[in-house]
Amino acid sequence: MKTVIIGGVAGGMSAATRLRRLDESAEIVVLERSGHVSYANCGLPYHLGGVIAERDALLLQTPAGLRERFALDVRVRHEVVGVDAAARTVTVRDLTSGEVYAETYDHLVLSPGAAPFVPDVPGVKRARTLRTVEDLDALVAALAAEPRTAVVVGGGFVGLETAENLRRRGLDVTVVELADQVLAPLDAELAALVHAELRRHGVALELGTALAAVHDDTVELTDGRRLAADLVVLAIGVRPDVALAREAGLAIGPRGGVAVDEHMRTSDPRVFAVGDAAEKTDAVGDGPVLVPLANAANRAGRQVADVIAGRSVRLAPSLGTAIVKVFGLTVAVTGWNEKRARAAGRDHRVVHTHPASHAGYYPGAAPMALKLVFDPGTGEILGAQAVGTEGVDKRVDVIATAMRAGLTAPELADLELAYAPPFGSAKDPVNMLGYVAANLMDGTTASVQWHELEAAVAAGAHLVDVRTAGEYAAGHVPGALNVPLDGLRERAGELPEGPLVVYCGVGVRAHTATRLLTGLGRRVVNLDGGYTTWKTATATATATAAAAVTAA
Amino acid sequence: MKTVIIGGVAGGMSAATRLRRLDESAEIVVLERSGHVSYANCGLPYHLGGVIAERDALLLQTPAGLRERFALDVRVRHEVVGVDAAARTVTVRDLTSGEVYAETYDHLVLSPGAAPFVPDVPGVKRARTLRTVEDLDALVAALAAEPRTAVVVGGGFVGLETAENLRRRGLDVTVVELADQVLAPLDAELAALVHAELRRHGVALELGTALAAVHDDTVELTDGRRLAADLVVLAIGVRPDVALAREAGLAIGPRGGVAVDEHMRTSDPRVFAVGDAAEKTDAVGDGPVLVPLANAANRAGRQVADVIAGRSVRLAPSLGTAIVKVFGLTVAVTGWNEKRARAAGRDHRVVHTHPASHAGYYPGAAPMALKLVFDPGTGEILGAQAVGTEGVDKRVDVIATAMRAGLTAPELADLELAYAPPFGSAKDPVNMLGYVAANLMDGTTASVQWHELEAAVAAGAHLVDVRTAGEYAAGHVPGALNVPLDGLRERAGELPEGPLVVYCGVGVRAHTATRLLTGLGRRVVNLDGGYTTWKTATATATATAAAAVTAA
Repeated sequence: MKTVIIGGVAGGMSAATRLRRLDESAEIVVLERSGHVSYANCGLPYHLGGVIAERDALLLQTPAGLRERFALDVRVRHEVVGVDAAARTVTVRDLTSGEVYAETYDHLVLSPGAAPFVPDVPGVKRARTLRTVEDLDALVAALAAEPRTAVVVGGGFVGLETAENLRRRGLDVTVVELADQVLAPLDAELAALVHAELRRHGVALELGTALAAVHDDTVELTDGRRLAADLVVLAIGVRPDVALAREAGLAIGPRGGVAVDEHMRTSDPRVFAVGDAAEKTDAVGDGPVLVPLANAANRAGRQVADVIAGRSVRLAPSLGTAIVKVFGLTVAVTGWNEKRARAAGRDHRVVHTHPASHAGYYPGAAPMALKLVFDPGTGEILGAQAVGTEGVDKRVDVIATAMRAGLTAPELADLELAYAPPFGSAKDPVNMLGYVAANLMDGTTASVQWHELEAAVAAGAHLVDVRTAGEYAAGHVPGALNVPLDGLRERAGELPEGPLVVYCGVGVRAHTATRLLTGLGRRVVNLDGGYTTWKTATATATATAAAAVTAA
Repeated sequence: MKTVIIGGVAGGMSAATRLRRLDESAEIVVLERSGHVSYANCGLPYHLGGVIAERDALLLQTPAGLRERFALDVRVRHEVVGVDAAARTVTVRDLTSGEVYAETYDHLVLSPGAAPFVPDVPGVKRARTLRTVEDLDALVAALAAEPRTAVVVGGGFVGLETAENLRRRGLDVTVVELADQVLAPLDAELAALVHAELRRHGVALELGTALAAVHDDTVELTDGRRLAADLVVLAIGVRPDVALAREAGLAIGPRGGVAVDEHMRTSDPRVFAVGDAAEKTDAVGDGPVLVPLANAANRAGRQVADVIAGRSVRLAPSLGTAIVKVFGLTVAVTGWNEKRARAAGRDHRVVHTHPASHAGYYPGAAPMALKLVFDPGTGEILGAQAVGTEGVDKRVDVIATAMRAGLTAPELADLELAYAPPFGSAKDPVNMLGYVAANLMDGTTASVQWHELEAAVAAGAHLVDVRTAGEYAAGHVPGALNVPLDGLRERAGELPEGPLVVYCGVGVRAHTATRLLTGLGRRVVNLDGGYTTWKTATATATATAAAAVTAA
C-alpha cells in the first residue's frame, strides 16, 4: 500500500511517522513544496527576535534523517500541481529541476496547510509574511538592512509575536488591526489588558483601521494616514490552502476548508485532509470551524495514519484551545468567547474573576483576569479566557480538560487541584469560577456585567461601592455611594430604597455584601468582576482614542 | 438556628463564612483552642525560612474582623472539652480565664484538625512540631539561639518544607525517615530525584531508620547512631484529632478519622465533621481515606454550610491531589501510585515519560519525570506523579481533572491543551501519556518496567540500546548491545535470536525501534521510561548506601 502525503510539517509529518510505526512495509511518500520539512513553524517569530538564537534549532528533521529513521521518501521543493482522484495519481513538479512527473497512490493525505492572507492593495509586494523558513530567512535578511520602523498588519497571535520580536530587535513597531481590539478570541475587556501591555513595551496600536497601500517607506491606512514602515509584515490571518482539493473535485466546507468526516476522510474515500487546510467540528457549537493550530494538526495527522492502517479512530470536536505570550503577559483561551455566544444567540452567563496565581502571602503571586462563559440552564461550559502571567496556562488547560470531559461549570468547584502556597490557593481560581457559577445558577446570587451597568442604573438601581474609603477615593464608578463591607450590616439602613448594584475590587467582598443585603430583604446584584473589570473594560475606548490622538 | 463550629482554620472557617452568606440570621459560634483563626497553615514553614518575611502575612483574619464582616462569634483560646450529643451541648474551657461553660447548638461542626504524631521516645519533649502559629513562634524563638544543626524527623511534605527552610537559615539539616524514601506518595524511582535534589542542597538523608531518643544536643537513631541536633523537629505525620468525637460516642472510621457520610454527617445527624479529622472516600478505591490537605478541608467546610442551610450537596470522593516544592523541584501527585495499586492487587500498567516542560527549541525548557498508572482493562486512570520544575503542577492538575471527570488514559491523547513554544509542545506531555497508554492497551506496543528488566533478561531476552554510540559510551544498562535506531533497519539481522528488550534515553526512539522490529517479525518490548528511568531507579539503593557510609 502506498500513501502519498502532501505537506511535510505538523499534520503531514505526524501522519507519515505514525504510519511507518504502524506498518513497516508501507510505502510512504511525502511531497513538500518548500525547502524544509518538520520545522518548528510556531518558533519562527522567536528566531526573528533572537530569542531562539540558532536557526538550526527550528529545523527538527531533514529528509535524509527521516529516510534513515522512518524509511520515508521525503521530497522537498516538490510541489503537487494536480490530483486525479479517479486515476489515484498526483502530478508533481520538482521545483529545482522543473521536471514534472506523476505519482500514484492508494491513499492520499492532504496537509498543505494555510496561506497567509495578502490583501489586494497597491504596493503589497513589498510586504512580507512569516509562515515558512523561507519567509523567515527573507525577514532576517531584511533586518540586516537595519530598518528602523516596522508595521505589522494584523493583531492576531502571529502578528503580536512578530511585533514583540521586532521590538526586541529595536524597531519602532506599530500594529494595525481592522477590529477595535487585538486577539479576536478575547472579549474586549480582556483584550484591553493586552493593549496596555503592548503600549507599555513601546508597540503602537492602530485599531479600527486597515492597510490601504504599501509605499516605499510608509504604509497608508484606510483613514488616509501614513505610518513610517521600513518593514511591513502581513499577519492578517491564514486561508486554508484548498487549491488542489478544489481542482480534484473534493467537497469544500462552509468555512472554506476541505470538508472531512470524523475520520478525516474527504468526499473521496481514498483522500484524507488534516491540518490548517481541513475543517474541524466545533466542540461547542457542533458546526464546522477552522482551527489553524499546530496541536490540532499533529493530532489529526497521527489519527489519519491510524485510519489508513485500518484502525478505528475518530477525531474529537475542537475547542480551539490556544495560548500566546505577549511580552510579559500570557493570554490563553478555550472554546467560545462571549461575543460568539451572543452572535450565536446562545443563552449564556459570564463570570469575571481576578485571582492571584498562588497564595497571596507567598512571594511572587501575580494577578490574572479569568473569564468563564457558560450556559445557565445546563451549566455547560462554553468557554474561558485568561490573561496574566504565572499559572494562566494551567487554568485554561484545566478548563479545556473539563470541557472535553463534559463537566459543568458548577463542577469546576469540585476539582481537586494541586495546592501548596507556591502554586495555587486552597480554593483554586478554577474552583472559584465553579463556586460563582453555582451561585448564579441556583439563585444564591445575581450579577450584572460591566456593559449592563448603565442600563441597570437607568432602570433605577443604586450603585454601592463596598470597598474601603481609601479604595473608593482612589477611583470609583461615577455615582456610586461608598459603604464599606465592614460596617455595612450596621449602615444598611442608610442605603437608598430600590434595587441595588454592589461592587468591590474584584467581586468577592461584594458577593458577601450581596448576600448580606439579600438577607436583609433588599434586591441586590453584584457587579461581576468588580471595579477591576469595569475599569479595564470602560477605559478601552478612551485609551484607544487617546492613543490615536498621540499617534496622529 | 445556632451552629457551633469547633476549629477555626481551613474547614471550620470556610463553613462559618459560607453559612453566614447563606443565612444572615444564623447564630454562628466558632471555638478555637489556639490563639489564632483563619491563619495560613500551609505557609508556616516559609516564615521559618524567611521566604515569607512577615509573620502577619500568615494571619489572614482576626476574631474582630470576622465579627465585623461576617457577624461571627469567634472565640480563640476556647477549648471544647466535652460534647453531650443528646443534650446538644458542648462544654467549653476558656484557656485564658480558666472558666468552663456550656454552649448549646442546633448543629455542631467538628473541624479540630489533626495533631502531629509524637513518638513515645526518651527526651522527645525537646522536639518541636510545626502545626500552629504557636509552634511557629516557638521555632522562631529557638532559631534566635543560633542552632547550627537540625534533625527533621519525617520526610513527608511538611518535613521537607521544614528542612528546606531551616537550610535557608544556614543550619546543617538531616532528614530522618523510617521508609527507604521520602514523600510516600511517590514511587521509589521518582523519589530518587527528590533525594538527589535534597543532597544537592546540602540536606543529609537518613533513610530506613527512626528516632530512638532525643538527647541534649543529639538525637539517637534506632540503629544506635547519634546525629548532632541543636534543633529537633517532628514531622512524622498527623493523626486525626478524634478525642471529642470519641467522647461524644460518634462513630470512628477504619482509618481512625471521624466517620461521615457524603453529606459530612457523623453518626449523630446533628453533628458534622470536616477537614483533617474526618475520613473521606477514596476516588480510586472507594474505601475510606485520610486526606489531611487544606483544599479538601476548605471544600468540605463550605459544603457542610450548604447542608446545614438545607441545600443538597454531596462531597465528591477524594483523589488526594497534592504538591510540594523541594528546593528547585516541584513534586505533584494525584490518585494512586504504583505501590498502592500493587498492594491493592489492582491490575495496572505504568507509563514513565521524561518530556520537556515546553518546546525544546524555545529557551528554558526543563525536563520532568511523569508517571501514569492506569488499569489496562478499562483504561481507568488510577494516578499520576510528576517531578520537575516548570509545568509540573499544570500536568498533574490536568490529569486530576481528567480523573475527576472519568476520562480514560487513552483519552488524555485527545485533550486540547494550550500550545505555544513557551508553554508546551504541540503534543503535550499529557497527550503523550495518552498515546503511550493507548499503544499499550491496543497491543501496538508492549513495555517492561525497570524492576522487571532483570527477570526479562533471566528469561532469555536480549537487551538492545538504540541510542547513539556516544550516548551508549557515556553509560548503558550492563549487557546491552548498541545498535542505534538510525541504521537499525539495515542492521536488524545482526540482532541475536529470541525476545528483545529495546531501550533508548526516555522511550521515544525505542518505541520506533519496537515497532520497526515488530514489523520485521521480532518479539520486542520497550523498556518503559528508557535509560533515564532505569538509571534513576537502580541508582537509588546505591546512592542511599553511599550516603549512609559518608554520614557514618
